[in-house]
Parts: sequence; structure tokens; C-alpha cells
Amino acid sequence: MTHAPLRFGLIGTGRIGQVHAANIAANRDTTLSWVADPFVDGARSVTESFGGRVTADADELFAADDVDAVLIASPTPTHVDLIEQAVDRGIPVLCEKPIDLDIARVEALRPKVAAAGVPVALGFNRRFDPAFVEVRARVAAGEIGALEQLTIISRDPSAPPAAYVAVSGGIFRDMTIHDFDMARFFLPDIVEVSAVGSTTFDQGAREHGDFDTAVVTLRAASGAVVTIINSRHSAVGYDQRLEAFGALGTLQVANRSTSLVRLSTAERVEATAPYEDFFLQRYAEAYGAELRAFVELVRDGASASPTFDDGRAALLLADAAQRSATERVAVTVSLD
Amino acid sequence: MTHAPLRFGLIGTGRIGQVHAANIAANRDTTLSWVADPFVDGARSVTESFGGRVTADADELFAADDVDAVLIASPTPTHVDLIEQAVDRGIPVLCEKPIDLDIARVEALRPKVAAAGVPVALGFNRRFDPAFVEVRARVAAGEIGALEQLTIISRDPSAPPAAYVAVSGGIFRDMTIHDFDMARFFLPDIVEVSAVGSTTFDQGAREHGDFDTAVVTLRAASGAVVTIINSRHSAVGYDQRLEAFGALGTLQVANRSTSLVRLSTAERVEATAPYEDFFLQRYAEAYGAELRAFVELVRDGASASPTFDDGRAALLLADAAQRSATERVAVTVSLD
Amino acid sequence: MTHAPLRFGLIGTGRIGQVHAANIAANRDTTLSWVADPFVDGARSVTESFGGRVTADADELFAADDVDAVLIASPTPTHVDLIEQAVDRGIPVLCEKPIDLDIARVEALRPKVAAAGVPVALGFNRRFDPAFVEVRARVAAGEIGALEQLTIISRDPSAPPAAYVAVSGGIFRDMTIHDFDMARFFLPDIVEVSAVGSTTFDQGAREHGDFDTAVVTLRAASGAVVTIINSRHSAVGYDQRLEAFGALGTLQVANRSTSLVRLSTAERVEATAPYEDFFLQRYAEAYGAELRAFVELVRDGASASPTFDDGRAALLLADAAQRSATERVAVTVSLD
Amino acid sequence: MTHAPLRFGLIGTGRIGQVHAANIAANRDTTLSWVADPFVDGARSVTESFGGRVTADADELFAADDVDAVLIASPTPTHVDLIEQAVDRGIPVLCEKPIDLDIARVEALRPKVAAAGVPVALGFNRRFDPAFVEVRARVAAGEIGALEQLTIISRDPSAPPAAYVAVSGGIFRDMTIHDFDMARFFLPDIVEVSAVGSTTFDQGAREHGDFDTAVVTLRAASGAVVTIINSRHSAVGYDQRLEAFGALGTLQVANRSTSLVRLSTAERVEATAPYEDFFLQRYAEAYGAELRAFVELVRDGASASPTFDDGRAALLLADAAQRSATERVAVTVSLD
Repeated sequence: MTHAPLRFGLIGTGRIGQVHAANIAANRDTTLSWVADPFVDGARSVTESFGGRVTADADELFAADDVDAVLIASPTPTHVDLIEQAVDRGIPVLCEKPIDLDIARVEALRPKVAAAGVPVALGFNRRFDPAFVEVRARVAAGEIGALEQLTIISRDPSAPPAAYVAVSGGIFRDMTIHDFDMARFFLPDIVEVSAVGSTTFDQGAREHGDFDTAVVTLRAASGAVVTIINSRHSAVGYDQRLEAFGALGTLQVANRSTSLVRLSTAERVEATAPYEDFFLQRYAEAYGAELRAFVELVRDGASASPTFDDGRAALLLADAAQRSATERVAVTVSLD
Repeated sequence: MTHAPLRFGLIGTGRIGQVHAANIAANRDTTLSWVADPFVDGARSVTESFGGRVTADADELFAADDVDAVLIASPTPTHVDLIEQAVDRGIPVLCEKPIDLDIARVEALRPKVAAAGVPVALGFNRRFDPAFVEVRARVAAGEIGALEQLTIISRDPSAPPAAYVAVSGGIFRDMTIHDFDMARFFLPDIVEVSAVGSTTFDQGAREHGDFDTAVVTLRAASGAVVTIINSRHSAVGYDQRLEAFGALGTLQVANRSTSLVRLSTAERVEATAPYEDFFLQRYAEAYGAELRAFVELVRDGASASPTFDDGRAALLLADAAQRSATERVAVTVSLD
Repeated sequence: MTHAPLRFGLIGTGRIGQVHAANIAANRDTTLSWVADPFVDGARSVTESFGGRVTADADELFAADDVDAVLIASPTPTHVDLIEQAVDRGIPVLCEKPIDLDIARVEALRPKVAAAGVPVALGFNRRFDPAFVEVRARVAAGEIGALEQLTIISRDPSAPPAAYVAVSGGIFRDMTIHDFDMARFFLPDIVEVSAVGSTTFDQGAREHGDFDTAVVTLRAASGAVVTIINSRHSAVGYDQRLEAFGALGTLQVANRSTSLVRLSTAERVEATAPYEDFFLQRYAEAYGAELRAFVELVRDGASASPTFDDGRAALLLADAAQRSATERVAVTVSLD
Repeated sequence: MTHAPLRFGLIGTGRIGQVHAANIAANRDTTLSWVADPFVDGARSVTESFGGRVTADADELFAADDVDAVLIASPTPTHVDLIEQAVDRGIPVLCEKPIDLDIARVEALRPKVAAAGVPVALGFNRRFDPAFVEVRARVAAGEIGALEQLTIISRDPSAPPAAYVAVSGGIFRDMTIHDFDMARFFLPDIVEVSAVGSTTFDQGAREHGDFDTAVVTLRAASGAVVTIINSRHSAVGYDQRLEAFGALGTLQVANRSTSLVRLSTAERVEATAPYEDFFLQRYAEAYGAELRAFVELVRDGASASPTFDDGRAALLLADAAQRSATERVAVTVSLD
């Protein structure tokens, strides 16, 4: 069956909004109808490249009759209101993570989302990375037997500015939240969180009571244990590795180098180029796949897309990690 | 400076013609004006996806007033005539390799191409592969000192049908020709060719007096030695490696795996997925870069594009290899 | 200066005692004088291969006039008494880890060891592994800048028998103790321990209230964070990796495969052989280097050998981990 | 059955003679009885470490009644006479390669060796390297299907002194001879040799009409093709790789790094240490296995040891390569 393209309203035209705009334009099942941003020049620049009409006001976008779905890529504090507005109008939503930094606002919105029956997907892009998808499928297929340990090493290339740290909600809600979702991609039923945070290099983090270094251990209902190792910087580039350890073997995701070339000299052999810069490069394929999955969700109701409740679960884990790192106790969680 | 897009006439809509059509459509500096193929349905299918008008007859394409450049992706025997027609009309050409299987026809056309001053580029796509480009640049920068040995391992996934073998001109003119050009990408001044051919598995090759396995050794004027190792099949996928060995070190191009995932079990550790299928996947980036380089050649006159004479040189080396493999002697060549 | 060989009394002729016997015999600076084991046949088998006299009774060994040093490789509960006996007689000791499972007994012995001035070295063999030694030296040389994170993955090939688990003191005192010492090899000043234990596959561990899976996080005084990931089994062989993550880069120790051969087929490429079986193979060089360092300690007083206090510190960390894993709190430690 | 140790007479105490002496002393099935070298101090130094009596004159060694086998590690020109003397006396011989630089002398000795029935083994140590042994066994087991191509990359760390080059017999007889034997380890029936030699860096080679760079292609009776790539120097260390390419897959032998440690920084990732220095390190295990195989040959008559005829075949291939490289033709050989 042929479908008319899904017409998107995009809210927010920062770095990640631009990625989504490009993907919406490149996907033959989607088009860009409206782009909303109070910074109108940013929105205009996006529409010039990828089509659509411009507005400074998201309300105008919601009121338009040619918006089949909304992609929310605006600042985090606006997410809850925008999701609610979309749900009220029955418009499917793909919202960038996190839903909010305040779990109370998420819980307040939750019943309405559940009752509305409108698809609300969260932008946990890593769930669509071909390598992670492959490992999960092979674990599910029993290739390494029962999953006993999952180790996620996740380090950003460089620490964000202090101004960003101040409003980020802290490393667990801002950065580790992706890893919490990745943990739940493999082991949804997390029951306990232990976290250690440290500040080893970033003065900005220290000033705002945040950490630049963190290790989080999660225990799943099955007894499997997840370890997440984070740093806000990485000299070698964006470090995104995962190891699924099972009774019969191990599946590992290696970093992706920017080159196939290896250099050997008298000092060092088999050296290759640094890892891919950052998430826009490393997860370029994932963003495209995320959009395709969302289209399927809207059209067929069935989808691999992470849900509103997945977004909530990740935030609950982040809150628990924050408490664990602060109070130095393991924190029991219930994600139901 | 902004340019109007370069309007292409594409001749030939087989597998490689379709790749070029997609790249022309995707590149903002190029558009597809005309598509010519006696098999009109093929041409029409291309224009439906990528734009342009259809004709069964290349003459109509040449006669059109909206063709700024011609891309020749038709069967090899048509190349010489089509290049000549383009040159006569002063239209720049990007022609798939080889120019022809018959060096006499190439030599006959050569003076006209040289005199005309119209850009004629040959589609040796591997010259645009990021990994090979990187190695060449680093060799040129002196990173491994004087280049002493170049080793090219080049194996196709599976042998072509016997019918193809019959008209292919033999493994040296059909398959090794890419490696001859790659050798000259690093060491243009080849002075001697020694070749060994064998038929180890392909009944089709045997029937047509061709080889399925070949090793060619080239000697450069500098004394550097090139080794090319070919097979018409490769169980592990398209095998495309290169090693530049210099006085101070080695630069190697590894194969590209289709996955970042590695599996370890009790039997084997660190196993990854097979290599990328074939040239359309492995050299996808190269085809795009080839097109961009051709656009620069047409616009600015300066370019990295391999020339008509590069195409001739590769064919001279192929002919020499054929003679060497047959007569069991080393063959001296002059590529001037 | 030439020395007479150091004459060893070896106590205990189990698996690890035999390794030490062979190394003592092979090292030209050491000879085997006496071998004590209540299981006299075991002792005799050792002396037949490597020289020395046999006794069932360690007292006879201590009383002999041709014992310059004692190597204790007997069961753990005998270590404290044997160390004390050696110290009382002024005989240098190299004792297998752990000193004891009961920190109270260790603390009781500690003042005497400190006062006696007799070298007492602990058999933390991994400190002598060439790869770990190299990483530590390169970190110390500043090659990766300030050390921020240390990750140790340490998995045994298969779980010990339930009978062994029953008397092992638990995974932290029996297995992780090596990793605690390795952590302190890089970061001696550990100030806090958080541990998570789980039982995912080993019925024996479950019956004895032990874990088969553990993750321990250590915080160093510098703010650096250590993560230790343990499993009592590993389908792929003895898994012994380490990653030192610093401000300027990363140094990693890979597993050692049993072969240089890699297999590629249509299903999987670049597969190599499983990792080396277990500690006797993986750390064969380390045991030899450990002995050499001990000889230097005895002769020159200066050495890289881990001390009695290093043995005590590892046990304190193990106890803290046990408490943390049980009470689900982070545990502050003082190793002074 | 227990055997008395095989008593060796060792002739020649240069670098390789010393390796054999150490292995004879370390192997419990062998002892060193006599060591002969006109340079008596060298012989004495060996016996001081490894036992045995000294003589300047090999005749005295041959006349002794406590020599069960002779190991010839003296200069190449002495090999033929010493083998003959051993054969005349019925003493088994393990002789370092090559038998001689002059095929006429080898052919003259051949009937006597064949008639005598005394074991004469050639020291092609690489046949005993665990990695090459493993690949050969797995090829034989059909793991990669029919063997179609064998590629041997073999580069020494640095060029020998000009004085050595002068008497070496040239690169093919001195260095490639190991690779010829390795080729025959997989494909004994070589029928044709093509060789290219070049002098790219070594003034000593140039002065003596020798090559420092060579590529040799061998054709086996089966149609399989062998490529040998040689250089007299290698900045990255001793480069010893092999790739067996079959219808169903590939088996590769990688170089052995001197360390398990990998460094990643902002410039380069996953760099490890250079390859093992030279043959004494890289093939240490092989020399021990070679000795054990020779002991089995002497005791049981059955063995994996390369024979006198293998030594002759390698020299025939070297001579053919020399002729091919000089006359620029492929050379047909018969190794019967």
C-alpha cells in the first residue's frame, strides 16, 4: 500500500533539530510542513534547505491542518507542555530525550498520555544504531546464552560549558540517561541502582555540584548486572562501547574509527585514526532509522520506538543514580 | 561563486549507471537532464527516480541543448565512439572504465582527445575512496619514507557468468585494470609487467581460456615493486586491501566489515561480520567523490580525476600482463 | 657482584607450589633446598623434578640450616602461622595471597612483621605481568595524562566446586582480591568501596550465600574511580583486561589469544582462538618475574614486591566490598 | 618406553648454534656431549652454560663414542662435507639451512644420503612454528576448502652487512629460501618460478649485484599460486605473515607484537608495540619443536622434519628465482 508522506511539524532548530529536518527531507515517506522556533532565522535556514513553512510560535504549527506528526527538538523545559498539546490534539509525537528533568512533571503528564492512545515516542536514538540492534537481536536469539553482565562505556568527546552544566540536570539526567535507556533496551526490569560520581577535571561540574566522571551499577530482576562507565570527556573521541556477556560467549560493539587505514612504524604498529567525533556522526544511521520506526509506529501502531514510559523509566533511574551518588547507598527502584 | 548545476546526460542505465544517476540527483551541483538507453524501460525507471528526459538514442542526448556533460556507463564496445562524439561536440565526458578492450582503438582516439582540450575523465572510482586517498596523501607527505613496495589484494565476491567472461577481455582487462590504475595512483611510471594466471575453480574461465586467479608484479621506474593478487571469488566478501611499505613504516587499508559487532565464544574469539558485499557498497563514497571531482574538473580545469591517458595506461598494463601470463616472460612497457 | 643462589624452602606443593618450584629451579639465582607438604608424595614428586629434600613437617624446613628464604604456597589458613614462624627466625618470606581470610588475624600479625624488618612479600603475581607493568609505567610517565578511570575486567574460566566456594571466603576475598591489589598497583590510596554481587548461574555460590557475578567500584583519594567487573566463569577463556583512562588518552591491556591465526569465512571474519586457559598460562612470565623481584628484595632491600601491608589492604577492600554488597551501602575505608 | 637422552655433537657456536645448545640442554630427551668450533673460546662459552666437551676439530667430535646425533650450525660452505661425514658414520644429522649455495654439490651428495638410510633433517625452523603448523593442519582438514592462493610476506628487520651479502649467495638463496620451504610446506609440488628483484635502499646489495627487495610467484601443480614478498629491511620489526586463501575462506597468520598493550590518543588509536625483533625471538618455540621432531625422527623413523630433499628443493627454487629475476622469464622447475 502506498501512503501519502507523513507531514511533520518540527519544533526546535538547534543542532539536533537540523539533523531531524534533513532526515525528514531525505525520507520519501516524510515531508517537512512546518518549522517552529522563536529564533525565526534558525527556522528559516532549515526551511530553505529542507522545505516547510516557518513560524516563531509552536501554536501556529499545532493549529495548521497539514501537520500529521510533531517532532519536538526544543529545549527540555518545553517538552512536557508540547507533548501535552500534541496529545490533546491527537497528533503523534517524536520527542527528544529527556521528557523533563523533573519526574513530578513526567508523572503528572503520564495518565493523559496513557489514556489518549496517541503515539508518543522518545528520541533514544541509540536504540536504532545498527550495532546495538544487532547485539540485542543476537542476545535474544540465544547466541551467547543467558545474559549475565552488560557493560556500557560511554564517554563524550569534551565537557559541556559550565552554563550548560548549570541547567543540564546533572550528568545522570543529561548524559547517562542514554545509557540507562540502553541498559533497559537489553534488560527492561531494573530493580536497583548504585552510583559513584567524581569530579576529576571539569571545574564547571565542580562549581555546579555535578560530576564529570561516573560509574553506575544496575541490577536487573533476572540477577543480571549492568555497569555504565561515563566521562564527560575523551581525548580519543566519542567512546561508545558495549559488551554483552553471557553464559556462552560475549558480543561486543567496538568504536568506529574514522578511517580504514592503519599505520605501523618503528615506534607503534597498527595505529588507526581516532573514533568518530560525536553523536551526529556516530549515530547518523540511527537517526534515520529512528524516523523510519516512528513512521511505522504512526501508520501501523507497531514499532520498536521507545515510549513515553521508557522516557520516564530512564529518568527514574537517573534520579535514583543521583540519590545513590549523593547519599552513598544503593537505591531500589520500581519502574512500573 | 555560485554555479548553475551541471546538467548531465547519462548513457547506459545498468547497475553502475543507476549509481551515477542517484549521485547526480543527490549532488546539489549536478542534475540529470537526459538518460539514454536502447532499453528504454531501464532509462525510464531511472528518470522516474532521479529526473531527466528519456531517449533510446544517444544521438538525441548529444543533440540536446541542455547537456553540459556526459556520463558514459554503457557497454564497453560503445565507449570509444561515444567519447569521440562528446569530444567532437566539446562536451566534457566522464566514462566508465575501460576505454575499450582494444588498445588500437584507444590509440586511434588518443590524438583527438589530446587536441580537443575537452575534459575526458575515466571512472576509476577507487582513486576516490577515502582510505586509498588517505594512504596516498600520507605516503606523499613522507610518513613512511620512500615507497618501496605496494601490495594490492583485490578479490571479487564471485566469478561472473561464463557469458560475461567470454566478452570481458579477460581478467587483466576486466578486473585487474582497476588495480593497474591503483598501482599508477601511487607509482605512475611503471616500466615492467610480470604476470601469472591460473584457473583453479571457475569452469567458465577455463572454457574461455581466461584465468580466475592472477598475480601481477609491476616494477616502477623508481625501483619500487607492486604486487597485485587477484581472485575472481572470495568466500569472505569483497576483499580490497592495500599495503604501502616504505623505508620508515607501513600504511595498510583494511577491509570494511559490515558490522562493529564482535562475537567471542568457546571456539573462536573476536569474530566480526563479513566484508562489504561488493563495489557498490564498498565504494559508495568513492562514486560520490568521483562525481564531485569531475564537476571541479569541468568548472576549474584542475582535478584529481584520472584522464583518458590513465585509462590508456591501465589498458597497456593489462595487455602486457596478458602477454606475460601467456608467454611466460616479463614484459617491458612504455606508458608515454 | 656474584651471589650464591638463594636457597628456598617451599611449603605446599599444590598447583601453584609446583609453578614456584619450577621457577626456583629454572632461575640461576635460586635453588630448591627443601619442600614441605603433609602430603609427602606431592613433595617428593616436586623434588624429583626440581631438587631439594622432602619433609612432611614445615618445622623441619624452618630448622634446616640451608634455607635462605621461604615460599609459602600452602592452604590459606596456614599462612599467618607460617609467616610468623619465618619472621621469628628472620627468614624472608614470599607468601601466596591472601594472608588470611580473617582481617583480625592479619592485624594481629602486622606489628610483628613491621618490627622484624624481615622481607615479607605477597604473591600478587599480576603486578609482575609485563603488560600491566608496562601500562603502569606509561601512566606514571604521563603518557595519558592524569589517570581518571581504571577499569578491570577479570573473569575466571569456570566456577570452582561448591566445596571450594564454602571455604573460599567468598568471591571478594578469593577472586576479586587480585583485582583490589591491581587497583592499588595504580591507585594505592583507595578511600571508598561500593559493591554489587549477584548469583546468575552457579548453584554452589547460591547455596553458600556467595556471588558468582560482581561489580565493585572504588574511589581513590585523587578522585579517580576504579571499576572491577568479575564473573566466576567465562566461556571464551580467562578474561583479563584492563583499561587506564586518562585525560590525554587510554592504555588498554587486551587478552592474549592462544594463537596468531585468524579465520575468515562467509559467516564470520577475523576470528582467532580463545584466550589463554587460566592463570598458570596467562601469568607464566609474571611468576618468574615475581621470583626475580623477591630475590632482589632479599638481596638489596629494594623491590617492586607487594608487601604484607599490600596484602592487608587488599583484604580490607574485600571485607568492605562484602559489607557493601550485603548492606547495600558504600563503605568508607582507611588503608593506613 | 623410556629412552636414554640423545647425545648431541654440536658443530658451530654462532648465534644459531647457541640457540640449539640451549634447547638441547633444556630438553629432557637430549644432552650436549660435544661442541666443536675452530673458535674454541666460543665453544667453551657454550659448554660452560650447557655442558659437553670442547674441540676445535669436528673430526674429534665425529670420532667420539658418545655422539648419537650431530647438529650442524657451522658456516654454509662446510655443510656438505659435514653431512657426508655424519652419513658415512651412520650418525643422524640436523643441519642448518641451506645445504649449500651450489646445487651441484647438493646433487653430488644426494645419492649417498638417499642410500645411507641415516636421518638427515634440514633446519627449516618455520615448519615448526605453532601458527604455521596450525594453518597447515586446518587447511589439510578442509576448513577453507581447496587452497588456491598462498601469500607469504617475509621481511627482515635490517639488511645484513655488505660483507655478508657478498658471500650470502644472494637474497633468494639466503633469505627467500625459508619462504620457498614454507611454500612447499603447503604445496610441495611447485612447477614454475617467476621472480622480480629490485634494489631500493641497500647500497651493499647494489654493489654485489644482489637485490634488497623481491617478489616471487610460484605455481603449484594443482594450479594454486604462491606469492612471496620480501624485503631485507622492515622499520616495524620482523614481518612474518602468511595468508592461505581457499575456496571457502582465509586463514591468516598475523605478526606477533611484543606487547598486549594498546595506546589511544587524540592522534591515533589502538596502537600497539612493534613486532618481535627477529627470528630468535619470533621462532623461539619453533626451534624447540624442531629439536623434538628430530628426536622423534631418530627414535621412531617417522617425523615432520624437513628432509635433505626438502633442502635441495628449496635451493632449486632459489636458483630458478635467481635465473628468473635475471633473465626476466618464468622458469619451469622439476623438484623430483
